[in-house]
Amino acid sequence: MRIEFSQAVSEISNADNILILTHVNPDGDTLGSGFALLRALRKTGKRARLINGDKINGKYNFLFEDLKEDDFSEEFVISVDVAERKLLGDSLNEKYGDRVDLSIDHHGTTRLFAKKTYCEPDSASCCEIIYLIIKALGIEMDSDIASCVYTGCSTDTGCFKYSNVTVRTHLIAAELIAAGADHSKINVRMFDTKSMNNIMLEKMCLSSLEFFAEGRIAVISVTQKMFQESGTDKSALDAIKPITRQIEGVKAGVTLREEEDGAISVSVRTDEDVDASAVCAHFGGGGHIRAAGCEIHGKGIEEAKKDVVEYIVSVLK
Amino acid sequence: MRIEFSQAVSEISNADNILILTHVNPDGDTLGSGFALLRALRKTGKRARLINGDKINGKYNFLFEDLKEDDFSEEFVISVDVAERKLLGDSLNEKYGDRVDLSIDHHGTTRLFAKKTYCEPDSASCCEIIYLIIKALGIEMDSDIASCVYTGCSTDTGCFKYSNVTVRTHLIAAELIAAGADHSKINVRMFDTKSMNNIMLEKMCLSSLEFFAEGRIAVISVTQKMFQESGTDKSALDAIKPITRQIEGVKAGVTLREEEDGAISVSVRTDEDVDASAVCAHFGGGGHIRAAGCEIHGKGIEEAKKDVVEYIVSVLK
Repeated sequence: MRIEFSQAVSEISNADNILILTHVNPDGDTLGSGFALLRALRKTGKRARLINGDKINGKYNFLFEDLKEDDFSEEFVISVDVAERKLLGDSLNEKYGDRVDLSIDHHGTTRLFAKKTYCEPDSASCCEIIYLIIKALGIEMDSDIASCVYTGCSTDTGCFKYSNVTVRTHLIAAELIAAGADHSKINVRMFDTKSMNNIMLEKMCLSSLEFFAEGRIAVISVTQKMFQESGTDKSALDAIKPITRQIEGVKAGVTLREEEDGAISVSVRTDEDVDASAVCAHFGGGGHIRAAGCEIHGKGIEEAKKDVVEYIVSVLK
Repeated sequence: MRIEFSQAVSEISNADNILILTHVNPDGDTLGSGFALLRALRKTGKRARLINGDKINGKYNFLFEDLKEDDFSEEFVISVDVAERKLLGDSLNEKYGDRVDLSIDHHGTTRLFAKKTYCEPDSASCCEIIYLIIKALGIEMDSDIASCVYTGCSTDTGCFKYSNVTVRTHLIAAELIAAGADHSKINVRMFDTKSMNNIMLEKMCLSSLEFFAEGRIAVISVTQKMFQESGTDKSALDAIKPITRQIEGVKAGVTLREEEDGAISVSVRTDEDVDASAVCAHFGGGGHIRAAGCEIHGKGIEEAKKDVVEYIVSVLK
């Protein structure tokens, strides 16, 4: 059941012994939301703890490393930034998937898996909503809470760069900095720090960069050997996939990735001239109009590249 | 002579037939400031025109492409974001360097070359000051002015990423978006667009990347051949120099560049463990504690690299 903002606030206000759940492959928004809420609740004397079903990247340690563990039998379960229960991860989904009392989310695609859901699809981040809830609960902002909230506001907007940024996003950022959010240190950690392994993979990916159709198609090819030699895995590609589409004149950017089982995973990013989801549908995949994916089986990476490029060329004409 | 904000506002209010000057190697802040002011002044019925002593990168065309040219004999000259007169460029410096009535700037190092200077060193961008001046002049903000101001606010802060961002920066950004600034399109143009030539240079630079001293020193070497093959020049390195320092564990990031005359230009960026200006002073250069430069003559790029790395290793110990 969807509820209003004021109901979400009073649900939390009336609860105690609260368990907070975040989504798998945890990012700055789910963790920032979760730890901001946890810190705020503890300030009011409530007991709260957070579980994540996944390994948390070390760059997020500052969000929680000063916090004491607490163990109690939960009476109220809140999920933050979790659009559907399977995103809790297998073990947490099994244990808590049907026991979430309140889901706080900002995804337009949110599933109503919790007893009650408060979702603002126009909010750039879940952290914006958490900020407003903390204020509505009358809890005084401090620099630690502000840093947690800032982390989600910043990471879910590419540091205030994307089209999801609204007037409210900047107004909240102003209040967070006024409250002591350590904004520039957080941004260095989130945006200007690359591991040596990731930079080695980026170097290899740029070496593989090829252009087709007079520069309108750019292709990066990533092999298992490249992951092994750089000591990375496919998660390192998140930072690399946008590169092809950032190049002037490129209408379709393609990243081909060799899977461990030999399949070729294809990510396609396009501008308004090419429908990425249609390209990927041709190869049995799908997605959004500007970003889509598919898998090609039974072919090597060179052959798969040839097929994908040929098809995009035919669509470009 | 330094003046107060209110004096700067009344100077502009009393002026007409206004010439606006921007700095050479023009960036988003000087151009955004200049064209925002020009648009605002024209809205009040004043005549205003802008000259830049340099070629303007095409990515800034949206700031002015709808504006009509105007020619008149200037009665009042304003420079924006120009810290010293030689930054007007040779020809404009010669013609106007001693005729600037009002300098509006935000550089702590500003020289008082104009008759009157209004400088706010704590302002993240010159555009923030221009915004406040336009408001104080009682000129209604519109989407075109807001887009110009936003461009400087965003580019001079790395899209709200750097430590120069203040509460005011975000409050102004909120007002600009409310006034119709085309923020996400501007950010794509400013931050997510690379020319094919630049990406080719980046590929070559990453191929040249080497680590020394157990990964504490990272070095990129750029030869004239690389500029020729990629069709770029040294200006393309602005986007590349920060890479070395972004790598985890790197204490000193070095970019070596072969000049046309064979000299080796060295850029050093460091974290708190190494004093970049001291390193460069050793080779006859200088700069800031975290970013400095020097030139090495009479040696090839490999030899210069060896010398610089050896010296940094000795400092790191």
